[in-house]
Amino acid sequence: MLIEDFNVRFCETDALAHVSNTVLVDWFEMAREPIFRIFTPELDLQNWPLILAGYKVDFLDQMHYGHPVQVRTYISRIGGSSFDTYQELWQNGTKRATGTTTMVQYNYAEKKSVVINDEIREKLTEHAIPRGVNV
Amino acid sequence: MLIEDFNVRFCETDALAHVSNTVLVDWFEMAREPIFRIFTPELDLQNWPLILAGYKVDFLDQMHYGHPVQVRTYISRIGGSSFDTYQELWQNGTKRATGTTTMVQYNYAEKKSVVINDEIREKLTEHAIPRGVNV
Amino acid sequence: MLIEDFNVRFCETDALAHVSNTVLVDWFEMAREPIFRIFTPELDLQNWPLILAGYKVDFLDQMHYGHPVQVRTYISRIGGSSFDTYQELWQNGTKRATGTTTMVQYNYAEKKSVVINDEIREKLTEHAIPRGVNV
Amino acid sequence: MLIEDFNVRFCETDALAHVSNTVLVDWFEMAREPIFRIFTPELDLQNWPLILAGYKVDFLDQMHYGHPVQVRTYISRIGGSSFDTYQELWQNGTKRATGTTTMVQYNYAEKKSVVINDEIREKLTEHAIPRGVNV
Repeated sequence: MLIEDFNVRFCETDALAHVSNTVLVDWFEMAREPIFRIFTPELDLQNWPLILAGYKVDFLDQMHYGHPVQVRTYISRIGGSSFDTYQELWQNGTKRATGTTTMVQYNYAEKKSVVINDEIREKLTEHAIPRGVNV
Repeated sequence: MLIEDFNVRFCETDALAHVSNTVLVDWFEMAREPIFRIFTPELDLQNWPLILAGYKVDFLDQMHYGHPVQVRTYISRIGGSSFDTYQELWQNGTKRATGTTTMVQYNYAEKKSVVINDEIREKLTEHAIPRGVNV
Repeated sequence: MLIEDFNVRFCETDALAHVSNTVLVDWFEMAREPIFRIFTPELDLQNWPLILAGYKVDFLDQMHYGHPVQVRTYISRIGGSSFDTYQELWQNGTKRATGTTTMVQYNYAEKKSVVINDEIREKLTEHAIPRGVNV
Repeated sequence: MLIEDFNVRFCETDALAHVSNTVLVDWFEMAREPIFRIFTPELDLQNWPLILAGYKVDFLDQMHYGHPVQVRTYISRIGGSSFDTYQELWQNGTKRATGTTTMVQYNYAEKKSVVINDEIREKLTEHAIPRGVNV
């Protein structure tokens, strides 16, 4: 599991005085940075090795400004060239949202997916969801 | 079907020189405004009648700056108090992304969902997905 | 003068139920697209010819969701390699914010500014602030 | 001086593979949270005591993804009901941008400014710019 702690930004709230639903994908992307580094340790933008295939976010409870939030990131699936992250957003001891994102190892120049090798597969597996975490 | 046409903003691109995946939920939310008006014609923020339960976005192809984009919005499900929108993002004649969002008619003060009445149900149905559109 | 009309996005509001101040620079950037096209008609990201040196935004009145907004864009200064845009944000017949942005014609590969030639200078001048507009 | 350290988010870059200029106002707002707490220790959104009158950001050098950034926040002016923050954005030991923001103590219900009392004035003064910092 990877942990990312931070504060809600004022501009991330909306007129309902809670966190805008649109912000969750920003937060989840930010919290995947250690996953990006498994594929490109230097975060090399010229040879970026990943493309996003889709995401799904479920909202369980509202989130508010003024209280720290935490994203917990797990790897929930590893396929041939793609994998899923499962992420939870916690605030004040309550799970407020969950997200599953599918990413593909990808060669932008050749416009094709790339098989995940064993070394990367092993590093991803270190963040696999343990038994007892309900996805 | 509801149509929303607009241009990509420069700040909506990312370092991969394409549209950031995080932007799609902003665009889809924007394109749901006519749906919001079915529930609150004056867009009354003091008595906002909807809460978002979840969204799912699938990316089919990259989107780029400098070419107009179009969001097409349909109602794909109507339940007791909740409903789904199905949305497509088109650019240069190609469908680039699709999204399904679940919203719930909701009373924020009482923190409970509200049954969708027949009048609203009928208006939502006007935007139902016609046969021939693959979701 | 260049005109850009659009609607406030729900996610652009904040917990004070008005438009977040952080959004104005997004809007003003979007409304400068025709200016960008004077320097690069095809909006060529591989040879982007401009860099931003600074911006200043003054807020005159709050802006709200549910009412169309308009950005009016003028050229307020042309220097050797730099120029300023002056922009106004109008909503419901009232000027709500103004912004001045300094951009520089720039060669990113060589990391140096580029003198604005007469052809571009002339096109910029077409959008100069007329007498009678108070900056 | 107040210090805020964080990482650039991938979605905060743009097609030029650097940080979008539009992001700076988000970052500077986030870094003012301790200033907000001087006026409202509980960050009470129902009685928010501040309104933004303007900001000015100067860009000195490009900022990039993958390297931590730091915002340093000072109080650079205290008037009757308004005050200025002066903020610097540092990355890799270089000052990349500076910003000055004018905020006003404000009563939203009565739509009028409120004089800053001595207690708040004293707390703001603790973050005043020391000699030797060039604004």
